[in-house]
Amino acid sequence: MRRISIEKIKKRIGQRVKIAGFVRIIRNQGSIKFLVIRDISGAIQAVVTKARTEAATVVESLSLESVIEVTGSVQEEKQAPGGIEIAVEKILVLSRASAELPIPVVEKGDEKTSLQKRLDWRWLDLRKSEKTLIFKVWTLMEQAFREYWTRDKYIEIHSPKLMSTPSESGAELFEVKYFNRKAYLAQSPQFYKQMAMAAGFERVFEIGPVFRANPSFTSQHDTEFTGYDAERSFISSHQDVIRGEERIIRYVLGRIKKKLGEEILALYDRNLSVPSVPFPQVTMRQAKEILAKLRVPSEKDGDLSPQEERALSAYIKEKKNHEFVFVTEYPVKVRPFYHMRLESDQKLTKSFDLLWNGLEITTGAQREHRYDILVAQAKEKGLKLKPIQFYLNFFRYGCPPHGGFGLGPSRMLMKVFNVDNVREVTYLYRGVKRLEP
Amino acid sequence: MRRISIEKIKKRIGQRVKIAGFVRIIRNQGSIKFLVIRDISGAIQAVVTKARTEAATVVESLSLESVIEVTGSVQEEKQAPGGIEIAVEKILVLSRASAELPIPVVEKGDEKTSLQKRLDWRWLDLRKSEKTLIFKVWTLMEQAFREYWTRDKYIEIHSPKLMSTPSESGAELFEVKYFNRKAYLAQSPQFYKQMAMAAGFERVFEIGPVFRANPSFTSQHDTEFTGYDAERSFISSHQDVIRGEERIIRYVLGRIKKKLGEEILALYDRNLSVPSVPFPQVTMRQAKEILAKLRVPSEKDGDLSPQEERALSAYIKEKKNHEFVFVTEYPVKVRPFYHMRLESDQKLTKSFDLLWNGLEITTGAQREHRYDILVAQAKEKGLKLKPIQFYLNFFRYGCPPHGGFGLGPSRMLMKVFNVDNVREVTYLYRGVKRLEP
Repeated sequence: MRRISIEKIKKRIGQRVKIAGFVRIIRNQGSIKFLVIRDISGAIQAVVTKARTEAATVVESLSLESVIEVTGSVQEEKQAPGGIEIAVEKILVLSRASAELPIPVVEKGDEKTSLQKRLDWRWLDLRKSEKTLIFKVWTLMEQAFREYWTRDKYIEIHSPKLMSTPSESGAELFEVKYFNRKAYLAQSPQFYKQMAMAAGFERVFEIGPVFRANPSFTSQHDTEFTGYDAERSFISSHQDVIRGEERIIRYVLGRIKKKLGEEILALYDRNLSVPSVPFPQVTMRQAKEILAKLRVPSEKDGDLSPQEERALSAYIKEKKNHEFVFVTEYPVKVRPFYHMRLESDQKLTKSFDLLWNGLEITTGAQREHRYDILVAQAKEKGLKLKPIQFYLNFFRYGCPPHGGFGLGPSRMLMKVFNVDNVREVTYLYRGVKRLEP
Repeated sequence: MRRISIEKIKKRIGQRVKIAGFVRIIRNQGSIKFLVIRDISGAIQAVVTKARTEAATVVESLSLESVIEVTGSVQEEKQAPGGIEIAVEKILVLSRASAELPIPVVEKGDEKTSLQKRLDWRWLDLRKSEKTLIFKVWTLMEQAFREYWTRDKYIEIHSPKLMSTPSESGAELFEVKYFNRKAYLAQSPQFYKQMAMAAGFERVFEIGPVFRANPSFTSQHDTEFTGYDAERSFISSHQDVIRGEERIIRYVLGRIKKKLGEEILALYDRNLSVPSVPFPQVTMRQAKEILAKLRVPSEKDGDLSPQEERALSAYIKEKKNHEFVFVTEYPVKVRPFYHMRLESDQKLTKSFDLLWNGLEITTGAQREHRYDILVAQAKEKGLKLKPIQFYLNFFRYGCPPHGGFGLGPSRMLMKVFNVDNVREVTYLYRGVKRLEP
């Protein structure tokens, strides 16, 4: 007999089936023993009567979280969760768990175990259905992004993570011993997705790891995370990038809500809504005016602090009933040298961030594709040209006007599930003090 | 007027259109000037008559590979390639290329420029339509793999590339300065996809970079490449993994042939065929017997040299008319400690490689999921347990039987296009001496 997944059992009442999974609960009531077995699709109660002596003996010595294969018949039973259970004929232990679990594996509400301990034993933590759901949503989210892009004729690239020079500022950079020289880990695929524009690919996306030697310990930062990057040629301004991004986000959230919205609501009490387009926009200048009226202290000229991001999102939510807001026209001083400047005000850039319920999930811009202007902007920022000459070369032999954005999927998931810590939505978190497991 | 892509022009005969792209050819015949303009979708001839003085003046000073926007009407013209051309009204130069190109940008057959020089100026090399096609196929291939897996309820993971200890042998490892300690770049997601099995995810895949400090200079090796990895729980043996893999490869090649098969044939003279399932299989012992009969020298006991791989594939092609062959049951001595052993012969593993037309594109196996046996196998290989204890722990608290495979998409593309060098099918190649651009 072939093993079937637990979610399919409800259609097999009266039939013999074989299932397999982790033993989540063992209740030994003497002559009758109950198990709860969980696989990736759900959980089921299994009942072992005294008559099944062999199976009963197996249960006697069974430890929680062992992996077993159960053969038996499906029967209706009002007192069982979901109204059905399996009357066990035979149990085979596929993998025996040590009797002492380092952390308890209980569904929803394990608030006693510290986050650090849960991260130490991450694979046990991930066995809980509310944790598994995060990665089911991640899978769906990523596939939805890709479907949208590939339908839109985007080409996928995998750019190298090993570089001979820093990809961005040079700060927060990891150094690699590379044979007889040094290499650096890419802090973003920025330069290489722009290279694809110079190669005439016109539309590209990349999904891959980015590395930041960020020494901070906040709930939102990690030293390695997954980035979604997109770049497009022949745009008129950053507004084309914005319009593209709001449409794809609407599409992706629509897919998530439709397929997994009920589970998100059940396990996280979060009713996901699909945002209308266009998303609200404010310029940085307008944002600062709004925040001044709200008496939120401005920590940095031309940029928003986390507190300001939250206050601005709350304001937009109240005024426009929208969870998203684009902040545009960041000043030159807080943006990298390659952001294009506004024709009408050379101190401002054709750039934007996207906030979702108070958290920045995206940075984007039109890029400067004119070699001479790009070189002038790099010099103005005080950059040495030699280390970035390979990048500047991309613009010497024809390059279409282009722009794009980078989006953090783990930040997006924090907002999908309303969780505050990026560690909870990352498969295996990496931080200053954490390289394990 | 909105720019349209060049492939759509044939439906616009008699209409005014706007296109944009790179200037591939300029032919100045005095009173009449011809341009060939290429975008991602194709190429078109544009004709500038003397009457269009402004446009004619622009062409006078135009350099090859500049990016221009052309407005004009589409007309039939027998002498033009494809039978249509654009009668130019207006030309706007979006990006001027330097007059001297470092490498010529000509379609198909640029055999004069050295590979090294083409890699130095990779973005110019990639502008040729036969190069762009490789990445259109890559995009389709990757999406097809993902569609198959996600339909099959696989969960996608992004495992960390920064590790505190080596993921595999410890050889060919890149070391990273990680704050006050050392980290290493993952040589494969092996340990972490197995962690997902211990987490009860049941089926996972990962697409991401892998890093190997391989000092060799062959046409098939690089220090960073993209890996496709899949892992599945509740299998009976490595044969379940094999059956899964041959089906997905059949599906993916079917998608590629259907959508881009004609372009591959036209530009690479390669008629892709969709393989039948099951693929032929030989055990390593049988392979060695076949090769002995063919008088191919055996370089390594229990493993195949590139010469042996080519000879074996040629033999299978002749005997079974199949481009693929699984080689199974590798001896313990050439496989890592975590491969499960055959019940019938403890010197052999439940493992396989997949060869496609003489090139190894996959390694796979059932893994040993029983803690005690896994520890014994590690010791037998002479491994120190301490650095791998975090991995061994995955198997202490229940872990389903499982197996999987890793596949190299760039190797697969070498066979799709019949090209011999991995550098040609990699967006930006990384090797011992190459970290640029």
